[in-house]
Amino acid sequence: MSLKKKPVTGMKDITPEEMRIRDYVIRVIKDTYSSFGFSSIETPCVEHIENLSSKQGGENEKLIFKILKRGEKLQLDTAQSEADLVDSGLRYDLTVPLSRYYSNNANELPTPFKALQMGNVWRADRPQRGRFRQFMQCDIDILGDPSCMAEIDLILAMSTLLNKLEFKDYVIRINDRKLLKAMAAYSGFEEKDYDTVFIILDKMDKIGLDGVREELENAGFSKESVDKYLILFKEITRDKDGIKACAEKLAGFADSSVCDNLLTIVESVEATAEGDFRMEFDPTLVRGMSYYTGPIFEIAMEEYGGSVGGGGRYDQMIGRFTGKDTCAVGFSVGFERIVMLLMEKGFKVPGETQRTAFLIEKGMPTERMADILKEAAAARRQGKSVSVVQMQKNKKFQKQQLEEQGFGDFKEFFNN
Amino acid sequence: MSLKKKPVTGMKDITPEEMRIRDYVIRVIKDTYSSFGFSSIETPCVEHIENLSSKQGGENEKLIFKILKRGEKLQLDTAQSEADLVDSGLRYDLTVPLSRYYSNNANELPTPFKALQMGNVWRADRPQRGRFRQFMQCDIDILGDPSCMAEIDLILAMSTLLNKLEFKDYVIRINDRKLLKAMAAYSGFEEKDYDTVFIILDKMDKIGLDGVREELENAGFSKESVDKYLILFKEITRDKDGIKACAEKLAGFADSSVCDNLLTIVESVEATAEGDFRMEFDPTLVRGMSYYTGPIFEIAMEEYGGSVGGGGRYDQMIGRFTGKDTCAVGFSVGFERIVMLLMEKGFKVPGETQRTAFLIEKGMPTERMADILKEAAAARRQGKSVSVVQMQKNKKFQKQQLEEQGFGDFKEFFNN
Repeated sequence: MSLKKKPVTGMKDITPEEMRIRDYVIRVIKDTYSSFGFSSIETPCVEHIENLSSKQGGENEKLIFKILKRGEKLQLDTAQSEADLVDSGLRYDLTVPLSRYYSNNANELPTPFKALQMGNVWRADRPQRGRFRQFMQCDIDILGDPSCMAEIDLILAMSTLLNKLEFKDYVIRINDRKLLKAMAAYSGFEEKDYDTVFIILDKMDKIGLDGVREELENAGFSKESVDKYLILFKEITRDKDGIKACAEKLAGFADSSVCDNLLTIVESVEATAEGDFRMEFDPTLVRGMSYYTGPIFEIAMEEYGGSVGGGGRYDQMIGRFTGKDTCAVGFSVGFERIVMLLMEKGFKVPGETQRTAFLIEKGMPTERMADILKEAAAARRQGKSVSVVQMQKNKKFQKQQLEEQGFGDFKEFFNN
Repeated sequence: MSLKKKPVTGMKDITPEEMRIRDYVIRVIKDTYSSFGFSSIETPCVEHIENLSSKQGGENEKLIFKILKRGEKLQLDTAQSEADLVDSGLRYDLTVPLSRYYSNNANELPTPFKALQMGNVWRADRPQRGRFRQFMQCDIDILGDPSCMAEIDLILAMSTLLNKLEFKDYVIRINDRKLLKAMAAYSGFEEKDYDTVFIILDKMDKIGLDGVREELENAGFSKESVDKYLILFKEITRDKDGIKACAEKLAGFADSSVCDNLLTIVESVEATAEGDFRMEFDPTLVRGMSYYTGPIFEIAMEEYGGSVGGGGRYDQMIGRFTGKDTCAVGFSVGFERIVMLLMEKGFKVPGETQRTAFLIEKGMPTERMADILKEAAAARRQGKSVSVVQMQKNKKFQKQQLEEQGFGDFKEFFNN
């Protein structure tokens, strides 16, 4: 009967203080995205092991928490490998379950289908500060809209959300996978090498242009290609003119609609969105997952020194997975990072009701107790939060602890 | 790459229609319980296998979804049994994690500590209609209050909740484990047989007094004891007079404080609570889990034909588990049953904003698109929900599908 007191490795208990912020953020997210017409859905946390191992999840497939078969299905004696022991696992993202959900329900869902998912996902990552093995993901996806209206919708929804959460001065970086490929082709890289090139390019923020040059050359690419490639990033400005310059320079390598689309997205968002942010065309933006096929975007926040969300178009993933072509765009907000940022800056949940504690001395007679309970009920009807608790011997300490739980007001009731 | 389209056995995808009701119920629960001063906490869904196998969970311990060890820790070659393969599992309730949380954080928590937990739990039960292997539990617990103020607080909070969810005409049944034992002792049963007796008594609702008599006699108990026992249930009325009668009859078998407590609870709740329900003293109420030590209660709703929640005092469980005595009372509302009942009676979420869809013809010029997006933003600022989506070829079908998602209003924008 020995109890392990700490949570399992890499996961955490959430305190009342953090829960108040989490609950608030969840409400703002649900309300905001719902006001943009997204419909909430939910899938089980447990997913078929086959679906989790279908090569759509990249590196995440190595991090699955796998679930043992049960009952007669578990045959330990004859099991040859891990695969014989498990039939399911905890989901590592919300995109695989969304694909399954969509393929199972497509007939009842409108086109386009705008889905909102909030839920925990699990990854058996190496534990490190501020990153946990269970964390909340929060995704919006639009399935079935091939036009850039979908990207605009997602970006407007997320900027409205960040605005409501009082985030300022952030940058929405945007690029297009097709443009990335066109730039590589224009510079003379071979298609088989694109992924290697992009992984190096992705480090531009950290190692700069010279660092990228060095790594590309070390990887064995020709100086000519590397030069031609890097000059592009020097010349192209990080604004709408940069997009137009790409359109001219990369004619023949990318369809003109690619840059037209990007321009439309940037112009529409700039003309419509509220809040203190700017759009930036970033030709070095790669976004890790290789399943992206079109526009990709990311929110950069200086306060955090990194991305607090991102997404993009993945027109082929659902089709490859389900056998039926379905274009799709998704955006995932970094829920845990946003909660952490709000906690760090001492965010106060707006309109949080004052919490009052009624401290009742032991042995209060039933009739008087009823009067006290009625007083508490009346205060609650006026929107207050009232906790009726027994008075402890060390009243001062009790109050101190209640203050840490957000109780700011005390009323004491004695026994005579 | 073959996709399994259905959710894993016994679990379900949740549709937008059900999600709207779930999200509403979650909010009402959080708001109501928070107004009673309960603090939200959360624990990981994954728990140490040792904690899940500590004999506190009764039958539920046979239903654990177990998680495979990872990396070097998994040694398939030398594994002798299941236990060698797993290090954790999905929690089957929220009480075990609460015990762990409390023992890990007791120093920072006030006394009494009033906890609210909402979260999924998993049980590999035999799949059956309306019961799923993943389901939401919603518990309030008061730790560290030995007085019946804790029971009163829980019952008032839950009746306020059911009132807000517009449930009427329900019964709160109450009994006390100590009274159950006193009645058995009074009738001459031996302490070692109590559990067997209570399991049979628990069937009173279904098989009636004669059925209980038959099963008790078949189990080999003396006719004398059975007679004496069953006369009790005939004589004792299901009201406050019944409690008083018990106090007289069982003097010597139960401390007089047991009935005093029950009376105080019933009188305080009746004097204070709002809503259309009644309290009933039910000397046949057993409540499954053997860890209860004092008052036990249950909500019976005729619409459902069963319990939609229940709880009781479990003063010894946390101490046995953590090594430090901690009295505790808990109440668990049947979240999934309540959602099911609301769906069945066609419950409409109060104050749900009207959902409008703007249908945009393909190829809308950027400038006009910006105007449309601004119009949508303005409507959202007025509290409306507006979805901007591309118009499909089969517009009639598109609208029909959108209507099923709750869109009641359409505005069409054409390209010229």
